[in-house]
Amino acid sequence: MSSFGTLFKVTTYGESHCKSVGCIVDGVPPGLELTEDDIQPQLTRRRPGQSKLTTPRNEKDRVFIQSGTEKGKTLGTPIGMLVANEDQRPHDYSETDLYPRPSHADYTYLCKYGIKAASGGGRSSARETIGRVAAGAIAEKFLKKANNVEIVAFVSQVGSVKINRDAQDPKFIELLNTVTREQVDAAGPIRCPDPTVADAMTKAVEDARDSKDSIGGVVTCVIRNVPIGLGEPVFDKLEAQLAHAMLSLPATKGFEIGSGFAGVEIPGSKHNDAFYFDEETNRLRTKTNNSGGIQGGISNGENIYFSVAFKSVATISKEQATATYDGKKGVLAARGRHDPNVTPRAIPIVEAMAALVLADNLLIQKSRDAAHAIVA
Amino acid sequence: MSSFGTLFKVTTYGESHCKSVGCIVDGVPPGLELTEDDIQPQLTRRRPGQSKLTTPRNEKDRVFIQSGTEKGKTLGTPIGMLVANEDQRPHDYSETDLYPRPSHADYTYLCKYGIKAASGGGRSSARETIGRVAAGAIAEKFLKKANNVEIVAFVSQVGSVKINRDAQDPKFIELLNTVTREQVDAAGPIRCPDPTVADAMTKAVEDARDSKDSIGGVVTCVIRNVPIGLGEPVFDKLEAQLAHAMLSLPATKGFEIGSGFAGVEIPGSKHNDAFYFDEETNRLRTKTNNSGGIQGGISNGENIYFSVAFKSVATISKEQATATYDGKKGVLAARGRHDPNVTPRAIPIVEAMAALVLADNLLIQKSRDAAHAIVA
Amino acid sequence: MSSFGTLFKVTTYGESHCKSVGCIVDGVPPGLELTEDDIQPQLTRRRPGQSKLTTPRNEKDRVFIQSGTEKGKTLGTPIGMLVANEDQRPHDYSETDLYPRPSHADYTYLCKYGIKAASGGGRSSARETIGRVAAGAIAEKFLKKANNVEIVAFVSQVGSVKINRDAQDPKFIELLNTVTREQVDAAGPIRCPDPTVADAMTKAVEDARDSKDSIGGVVTCVIRNVPIGLGEPVFDKLEAQLAHAMLSLPATKGFEIGSGFAGVEIPGSKHNDAFYFDEETNRLRTKTNNSGGIQGGISNGENIYFSVAFKSVATISKEQATATYDGKKGVLAARGRHDPNVTPRAIPIVEAMAALVLADNLLIQKSRDAAHAIVA
Amino acid sequence: MSSFGTLFKVTTYGESHCKSVGCIVDGVPPGLELTEDDIQPQLTRRRPGQSKLTTPRNEKDRVFIQSGTEKGKTLGTPIGMLVANEDQRPHDYSETDLYPRPSHADYTYLCKYGIKAASGGGRSSARETIGRVAAGAIAEKFLKKANNVEIVAFVSQVGSVKINRDAQDPKFIELLNTVTREQVDAAGPIRCPDPTVADAMTKAVEDARDSKDSIGGVVTCVIRNVPIGLGEPVFDKLEAQLAHAMLSLPATKGFEIGSGFAGVEIPGSKHNDAFYFDEETNRLRTKTNNSGGIQGGISNGENIYFSVAFKSVATISKEQATATYDGKKGVLAARGRHDPNVTPRAIPIVEAMAALVLADNLLIQKSRDAAHAIVA
Repeated sequence: MSSFGTLFKVTTYGESHCKSVGCIVDGVPPGLELTEDDIQPQLTRRRPGQSKLTTPRNEKDRVFIQSGTEKGKTLGTPIGMLVANEDQRPHDYSETDLYPRPSHADYTYLCKYGIKAASGGGRSSARETIGRVAAGAIAEKFLKKANNVEIVAFVSQVGSVKINRDAQDPKFIELLNTVTREQVDAAGPIRCPDPTVADAMTKAVEDARDSKDSIGGVVTCVIRNVPIGLGEPVFDKLEAQLAHAMLSLPATKGFEIGSGFAGVEIPGSKHNDAFYFDEETNRLRTKTNNSGGIQGGISNGENIYFSVAFKSVATISKEQATATYDGKKGVLAARGRHDPNVTPRAIPIVEAMAALVLADNLLIQKSRDAAHAIVA
Repeated sequence: MSSFGTLFKVTTYGESHCKSVGCIVDGVPPGLELTEDDIQPQLTRRRPGQSKLTTPRNEKDRVFIQSGTEKGKTLGTPIGMLVANEDQRPHDYSETDLYPRPSHADYTYLCKYGIKAASGGGRSSARETIGRVAAGAIAEKFLKKANNVEIVAFVSQVGSVKINRDAQDPKFIELLNTVTREQVDAAGPIRCPDPTVADAMTKAVEDARDSKDSIGGVVTCVIRNVPIGLGEPVFDKLEAQLAHAMLSLPATKGFEIGSGFAGVEIPGSKHNDAFYFDEETNRLRTKTNNSGGIQGGISNGENIYFSVAFKSVATISKEQATATYDGKKGVLAARGRHDPNVTPRAIPIVEAMAALVLADNLLIQKSRDAAHAIVA
Repeated sequence: MSSFGTLFKVTTYGESHCKSVGCIVDGVPPGLELTEDDIQPQLTRRRPGQSKLTTPRNEKDRVFIQSGTEKGKTLGTPIGMLVANEDQRPHDYSETDLYPRPSHADYTYLCKYGIKAASGGGRSSARETIGRVAAGAIAEKFLKKANNVEIVAFVSQVGSVKINRDAQDPKFIELLNTVTREQVDAAGPIRCPDPTVADAMTKAVEDARDSKDSIGGVVTCVIRNVPIGLGEPVFDKLEAQLAHAMLSLPATKGFEIGSGFAGVEIPGSKHNDAFYFDEETNRLRTKTNNSGGIQGGISNGENIYFSVAFKSVATISKEQATATYDGKKGVLAARGRHDPNVTPRAIPIVEAMAALVLADNLLIQKSRDAAHAIVA
Repeated sequence: MSSFGTLFKVTTYGESHCKSVGCIVDGVPPGLELTEDDIQPQLTRRRPGQSKLTTPRNEKDRVFIQSGTEKGKTLGTPIGMLVANEDQRPHDYSETDLYPRPSHADYTYLCKYGIKAASGGGRSSARETIGRVAAGAIAEKFLKKANNVEIVAFVSQVGSVKINRDAQDPKFIELLNTVTREQVDAAGPIRCPDPTVADAMTKAVEDARDSKDSIGGVVTCVIRNVPIGLGEPVFDKLEAQLAHAMLSLPATKGFEIGSGFAGVEIPGSKHNDAFYFDEETNRLRTKTNNSGGIQGGISNGENIYFSVAFKSVATISKEQATATYDGKKGVLAARGRHDPNVTPRAIPIVEAMAALVLADNLLIQKSRDAAHAIVA
C-alpha cells in the first residue's frame, strides 16, 4: 500500500489535484540535526521544467516539516512533511477525458477502484514521489552520519545512446568509484556525467521532441561505503528490497544489479569475485565486483550498483489511434508541452528509494549486532 | 526476514544440514481441496540431479502436510509443511572449509551473523526454496480455481544462447500466449520450449561442464488469465512485488517486465499499448503488450510476463586464486560433481514466487471489491 | 510505532508544540461519500474545555482533508488529514522544567529517545489522539454503510461512583442494547447516560478539583450490529486487537470484555452462553452474552462490549514531593487550570479505536468470504 | 493471523487433530546457546493432567528443533520447532457433534471459515499454545542473557478466592519483588505461591468439579530487571502489546496493569509515582509503582506487573440446555474427565507471551540506541 520500510518507515499521501502531497517518516533516529534545508535540495532536483538548478530560496515544491523536530533536532517521533499542490482543482480535460490514455494508469485505476479520478491515474502521478524524496533525504543524512554512505545516481542511457555499463569494464568501475552528484548535475539537465555521451543523449531527447514522440532511459545508481552485513535473508535480500523500491517508481520496466543480464553470459570462473586481504581496510575484499556489492542477499562492503530501466514517456503529442472508455475507436493527441524523457528527473527519486532501503536495513542490522554482542 | 505476503503469507525455515526444511502458509482460503498430491509435483520438478521427471511415488524431497487440512480440505488455518533433510550432519569440509567460497554467501553470512554455519551460506542454500515451492503450489491451486490463472516459466537463455525476448516480436508474443508446462518439460532437462534452441543451450551447458566452469541463464515467466486490478499502489505495485519475489531467489541479478531494458529504445508512439474494444471479453484490451500486463502498478488483464537473470553458478571445479578467511592467499577448487547451470531447476521456484504474489494480491483486491460494492 | 491496522491502516504524526497533528488513512474503500463534515463532529467531541457541544462552524481543532477524495467521494487512495496546532512554540516551563512530572512520560521519553522535548512527553500528549479520531470517523462511516454498525461509548465509573457493569444484570444488558450517543451527550459533560449516576460523578470530579487533586474513571463501549466472523486467530483475536487499541490510549490501565474480571467468579454452568435459534435473524444466537460478543477470538454477532480503565490525571495542583532530573529532592505543583478527570473526553477516542479495529477486520473477512465462495 | 512480533517474530501452526503443532521463530540473535533442553521445561509445565512436575526425559509433548541451530548455538536463521500430536485422527463425537458447544469457538469458526473442523474450534484448541511456549522459552533465554530479566507468573485468584492484588499493599508489592517459579510450583498444582490461599483455591476447584461445573481464575505476572526504554509509542505502547499478547490467549476476558481497574478510585496525589534518586542503581526511580513499570507506553525500569482474567472452563459435565447447529433445542453434557479450572496451566503460556513481547521490544530499542549513539 502506501507504506515502505520496517524500522525506518515512510507512509505517503497525495495525488496531483489534491491540497497537498506529503509523508510521515517513522523511526528516524532521535537527536539527528534536521531542518527543511536538509530536505529541500533533493526536492528541487526532482522538480519538473528545470533547465538548470534553480535557486533554493525561490522555489516551488517547498517542503514544510510538521512534527518530530525541535530546535533543529529530531525527537525520534514521526516526522510529518508536506508540500502544497499549486493546481488543486480537477482539470476540465474535455475531449481527452473520454479516453483512457494508452500506457497510462487511467484504465487500471478505474478498474481497480471503480471510480475515476479527475487526474486519471490517481497516485500514479509523478507528484506522488515528492513524499519519497523528502523521506529519502532524511535517510540519506542518517546514512552519511553513520557510515559516510554516498549515493549517486546518473543517467546511463537515453534511447540507444549509452554509457557502457559492463561490470568487466575498468572504465565503468572507475566511474562508479568516483562519480559525484556535482559531476552529474554539472553535465547539464540530462544528468549524465560523461559530457560526450550527455550531448548525444540531449540530441536523442531533442529528436524525440521534434517527432512529437518520447524516448526511454536507464538510471544507474552507485552506493559507496556500505556497511557489511545489510539485508535480511531470505525474502528480504538487499537486492530484493532494492528491486522492490525501484520497480515501485512510475514507468520502470527493469532492474539489474552488478553484472545483471549481461552477466548471464560470463562463465563462473570469470564472474566469481575472488577474495583478497586488503591492508588498508584490514578485511577481506573482492578483486572484482560482478556481485554488485551483495552476496547471498547481504552487503559485502563493496560498492552496490544497479540500473533501472524507464520506459518512454506515455504522454506524446503525436496522434494515437486508440479507444474511448466506452469502447469507441478514436484518435488521441496530448495537448500542450510534454517532457519527452523523464529519466533525469528520476535521479533524486532513485537516490531517495536507495537511501530508504539502506537506512531501514542498517537499523535492523544494528539491532542484530547489539544482540549478538550480548549473547555470544 | 523469512515471511512473505500480507493476507496469503508464507514463512519458511531450514538450511541444508538441519533436520528438515519447511514452511507455514497462513491465510489459505478455507474449503480448498488440498493434499500432498497437489504439492509434490512442483517439488519434484525442483529436485536436483534429475535428467527427466521421476515418478512421484518414489521420490526424495517428499512433503508432509502437518496441519490446516482435514479430509482433504483446507480449514482456513495455517498449513504447516515439511520435507526431511537427508544429510543432516554438518560436513567435514577439511581444506575448503578455510575459504569463503567466492561469490557464495559464506563471507557475508559470517559478517552478518557473527557465526559460521557448517554449510557456509546458511539460508542461501538452494534447499531453502523448498518451502517456497510447497507454498506456491497452494497459491497456484487457488488461482486456478479463482480465475483459471496459468503460470508457465521456461529457460529463455543459457550463456549467449537465447530465445528472442523482444516484446515487439510476434513469435515471442505467440509463445507467451500458448506455452505450457508440458511443452517446457518435454524439451528435456534444459526446460526450453523451443527444441532447436534447447539443443544449443544443452551444448552450452556441456561446454561449461567440460571446462570445469559454469554458465548463467535467464528464466522467462508468463502469467495468463490474470484478473484486472491486482497490485497495491504505490509502494506495492504489482511489478515491484514480482521484482522483490524474484530477486529474493538465490543467484538472481536482474528482473525485467514487458519490454524491459530493450523497451528503453522504443519511442513512446510505438511503446504505448493502444486500446481497443474486445467483443469476446466485452472489455477494453490493448493491441500490443509492451507494458507486460501491468499499468500504473495494476494488472490490466493482459498476459503478465517477465524475465529473471541468474548468474553463472559460483561453485566450479576449476581452480580459483582467492583468499582464506584469515586473509592468506590460496587456491580453491570444488570437489565432486557440480551442476554447471541451475536455470532449469529455477523454473518451479519462479512459478511458485509468481503464484504467491498473485494470490496475495487477489485476496487483497477481493476485499476492496467487496467494500466498494458496499459503499458505492 | 505510529501505524495501526492491516488493510484499513492509519499512521499518525504530531505532538503538542509542532505545526500540526494529523494522519494518513490508507485502505479506505473507494467510492465512499466523505467530507470534513463527516469527521469534524467526533473531533469536536474530543476537544478539551467544552462544557457543551460547540457549534461545528466556529470550532478550533478543525480538520482539513489533504488528499484521497474528489467531489466528495473517496478515491481509494490514502486520505491525508491535518489539524493545525495553535500553540506551536515550545513553552518556557521555568521551574517545572527541571522535574520529570510524576506518572507522566517525561522521564521515559528522555530515557528512550535520549533527547528532551519541550513538551516533556512528546507523543504521549493528548493531541496525538486527534489523528486517531479523524481516522476513526472514516472507519465508522464505512461500518455504518456496511452493516449499520453502531458504536457507543460512555463513562461508567468516576472514582468509586459507577454504573453496575455486571454482565448478569438485565439492566446493564438493556443499557448496552439501547444507549445512544445522543443520550450520552445529553447527560451533560460527564457523558454518563444515567442522570442520577451522572450527577454523583460530576460531584466526584468537583470534589477532586476542590482538593487540587484528580480522579480516574472507566469508559464502557458497546458495538452493535457486528457481522459474525470478525477477528483473526490466533494472535489477532478480535478481543486482543481491541485490548491493544485501548491500551494504546494515554492513561489506560485495564481492559475487560464481556464478563471480564468479575466473570472469573461465575461457574461455567452460568457463564456459558447457551444457544437458541432466533426466528427473526434466522440464525443461532446466545441467550446470555457473558462472552461479550466474541468467542474463540471471532465475533458471534452479539453485542461486543468492553470497559477501559483510565487512571487519575497525573497533573495536579497539589504539591508533590518528588525529584528533579538530576536527582535533587524537590516539590512540584502544576500551575494554571487542570482537568481533574479526562474520562469524558476519552469517549470519542475509544469509539474511534473500536471503529478502526472493526473496519480493518471487516475488510480482511470480506476477502476470506470472497475466496471461500470461489473454492468451496 | 498466526504471526506475532516485528524483529523477534513467531509464527505458529497446528490444531488438536493434525500431525504436529509447532512454530518458526525468526530473528533470534545469532550465537545464543540453545538446545531442546532450554525449551522443554516450560512445555512440560504447560502439559495437561500433571499433578506434579514430570521428569523431563520421560515426557510427552517433546519438542524437536528442526533448524537454525548448529553445535548448540543459534545461527541467526529461523528456528523451526515441532511437537507431534498423539491423537491425530479426527474424533467421532457422535451426539455431541450436532451441537456447537456453548462458549466454545465451534460456532464462530464455522461462521468465519465456512467449514467445520472435527475438533470444532480449530485453532482455539489449547494445543495451539505449544508453539508460543516453545518460542517464548527462546525469548526468555535471550532476555536473561541481556538483562537478567526474570518473568514469574502465578495464580492470584480462583473463583472468589484471591491474593490481594492491591498496588498500594506492601505485601503484594513484596510478593512481586521476590516470587520465584520454584515457589510457584512448590505450592502444588494450583501454582499459587501463598500456601494458605493455595489450599483454598484447590478447594474451590474441587467444589467446582464435584458440582460437575467449572470456575475461572486470574493469573498475575511480574517482570523484573526490565531495561528502561522499551515500548513503541504510540500504537505499540508496551502495555498495549502486553494486553494484545494476553488477550490472544484462549479464555481470557481481561487485562490490567499496575493499579488497574482498582486504580481508578485512587486520587492522583496518591496514584502518582513520585521520583527519587536511587544511589544503588544511580538513577531516578519511583517510590511507588502504581504505573506497573510503564509510563507513556515505555518501561521505566520498575517491575512490570499485570493480571489476566481467565473465564470458567466452557466444557462441563453438567447438562446444559442449548441448541444444535440446525437450531433444534437440546441438552448437552460433556463426556469423560474435564479440567474444571485451567488457570495453573496458563502460567507458562503467560510467561511465554510476556517474554515474546519483551524480546521484540528490546531488539527494536537496541537499534534505536545504536542509531542515537551515531547521530547525537
